[in-house]
Amino acid sequence: MTDTEKSDEYVRSPNAFTDRITADGSSGWPVEPGRYRLVVSLACPWASRALVVRRLLGLESALSLAVTDPIQDERSWRFTLDPDDRDPVLGIRFLSEAYLARDPDYDGGVSVPVIVDVPSGKLVTNDYPEITLNLETEWTALHRPGAPDLYPEHLRAEIDAINEDVFRDVNNGVYRAGFAESQPAYEKAVYPLFARLDELERRLQRQRYLVGDTITEADIRLFTTLVRFDAVYHGHFKCNIRKLAEMPALWAYARDLYQTPGFGDTVDFDHIKRHYYQVHRTINPTGIVAVGPDLRQWLTPHGRETLGGRPFGDGTPPGPPPADETVTPLEVAGSTAA
Amino acid sequence: MTDTEKSDEYVRSPNAFTDRITADGSSGWPVEPGRYRLVVSLACPWASRALVVRRLLGLESALSLAVTDPIQDERSWRFTLDPDDRDPVLGIRFLSEAYLARDPDYDGGVSVPVIVDVPSGKLVTNDYPEITLNLETEWTALHRPGAPDLYPEHLRAEIDAINEDVFRDVNNGVYRAGFAESQPAYEKAVYPLFARLDELERRLQRQRYLVGDTITEADIRLFTTLVRFDAVYHGHFKCNIRKLAEMPALWAYARDLYQTPGFGDTVDFDHIKRHYYQVHRTINPTGIVAVGPDLRQWLTPHGRETLGGRPFGDGTPPGPPPADETVTPLEVAGSTAA
Repeated sequence: MTDTEKSDEYVRSPNAFTDRITADGSSGWPVEPGRYRLVVSLACPWASRALVVRRLLGLESALSLAVTDPIQDERSWRFTLDPDDRDPVLGIRFLSEAYLARDPDYDGGVSVPVIVDVPSGKLVTNDYPEITLNLETEWTALHRPGAPDLYPEHLRAEIDAINEDVFRDVNNGVYRAGFAESQPAYEKAVYPLFARLDELERRLQRQRYLVGDTITEADIRLFTTLVRFDAVYHGHFKCNIRKLAEMPALWAYARDLYQTPGFGDTVDFDHIKRHYYQVHRTINPTGIVAVGPDLRQWLTPHGRETLGGRPFGDGTPPGPPPADETVTPLEVAGSTAA
Repeated sequence: MTDTEKSDEYVRSPNAFTDRITADGSSGWPVEPGRYRLVVSLACPWASRALVVRRLLGLESALSLAVTDPIQDERSWRFTLDPDDRDPVLGIRFLSEAYLARDPDYDGGVSVPVIVDVPSGKLVTNDYPEITLNLETEWTALHRPGAPDLYPEHLRAEIDAINEDVFRDVNNGVYRAGFAESQPAYEKAVYPLFARLDELERRLQRQRYLVGDTITEADIRLFTTLVRFDAVYHGHFKCNIRKLAEMPALWAYARDLYQTPGFGDTVDFDHIKRHYYQVHRTINPTGIVAVGPDLRQWLTPHGRETLGGRPFGDGTPPGPPPADETVTPLEVAGSTAA
């Protein structure tokens, strides 16, 4: 939010750095294996999109991964999960250092996901909607054998259209509800959120995935919000007209994706829950983390196979995640003891 | 909580005035029609017990009713819903005035429900667990024809035992979870709460009511917490391992009672939601009231008749509530537009 936009409504800041990494190098940032580092928080739905895409396309060895502490301090995202509180590849303690390496005068927000140029330590992009499209369309030479086409040319118009609705009402809608500072601003977000979820519920009663019969970028963008819905958005952000678990098609759809290699294996509910409940003290002053819901529900049968669909189209599922990229087990992250 | 009990756990204050109103007048407060006034907040689960009992026993004309504003200010409960912000019978603006009429030196908390002696303006009792038992056992001469026996002698031991468990883990458990000031204090409340709900769920799969085959005091005490569960405790108090709506027997049991004359007609979801979300600013700094869940669910069929049971035993249901005691319609109180 800029100073001139003071309001009781939450307005997402624009992304400051929007460079693209290109196959032909025309942007000045050529695709090269091992050159770039993806920095994420496992808590963040925008960053998690890039995590899923990187897994589905098999880019783990070409594009290395840095994971921040889910709890920011006043210096924003930190590498306090790493030895000496320092990212071992970039050698920095705070993500802001990559922003400042790119622009010494930068004084805007520090967001994830970002891609950093390892040799120079400079941030290339924090433009999350472009990062996934970039990995899908420009990094093709480095995709694994059997990588799916997540952004097929003939479906792009439909994917883009649904992404726009989902962004406005769902991905960003939960934040507009949760960070609203007045009852009208909250209601202006929460009712369209559920109207859109109801529309998606109807759509997903008929088809396994949002667009076409395979997993696309549209599913990834919806998934990273849905997987956080009952754990944090329902209570912490007051998106409580219904739980995801009370919308049968959406809930089965979300479990179907969660159980698909490349999705659930990127989801760390411990990072998610601690981040939202502990960081947003203006919403949750005590920082107490709600223990529910029971996360084992994510592993229950979803029955979506009966709708057909070919999850990876002509491709294949990705293998298991790298050994050093595993997430907190459900039993540890949540209330499975209850 | 007294000054010597500082802790991160919520400790409910003892009730200051515990006089009983007796049929034989031996306590100094004889049962008399029209002499006393019951003061409640429709938001308060402890007060709502007395409201339900008064309705079931047909005591509306014998024991008049004052309803406070659901929003307290620094002077606690107020009669700001009445003309001139003054209770028309007691002539007071703040409930604290009845406490001070009883004890000019009183400086403790001001709670509802209370019974006030109208001629003297003095508070008789704020002892909520005793108030309902008192209405059931001492006010019998004023009960309506067909009033049920809510506290049958031969079941009292069983009712008392279940009330003790339900109070500790459920009625007060939600408060201990919601007002906890540390993660351990919260978890010490929320896990036993759900363990108890699970135990009640199993019990209510087999039988229509908690004790015997009729509605008793035990059902009333559980109901006033359950009816608030998804609307406020689930999110606002972080009691989110499951919704009530996800515990089939308890949810059907709660709807069965809600749809029974004397229960749902005392439930004002508008007062409930505004009170919790707007008063507890240490938990919800913005005071924004969550719009969910869809309250129309309370009117859906519950199917509990198949378990048998005789809701009012040898008695009959109460008639409709007095015209000046109707509650906010569900369509107005909640998110039924969504």
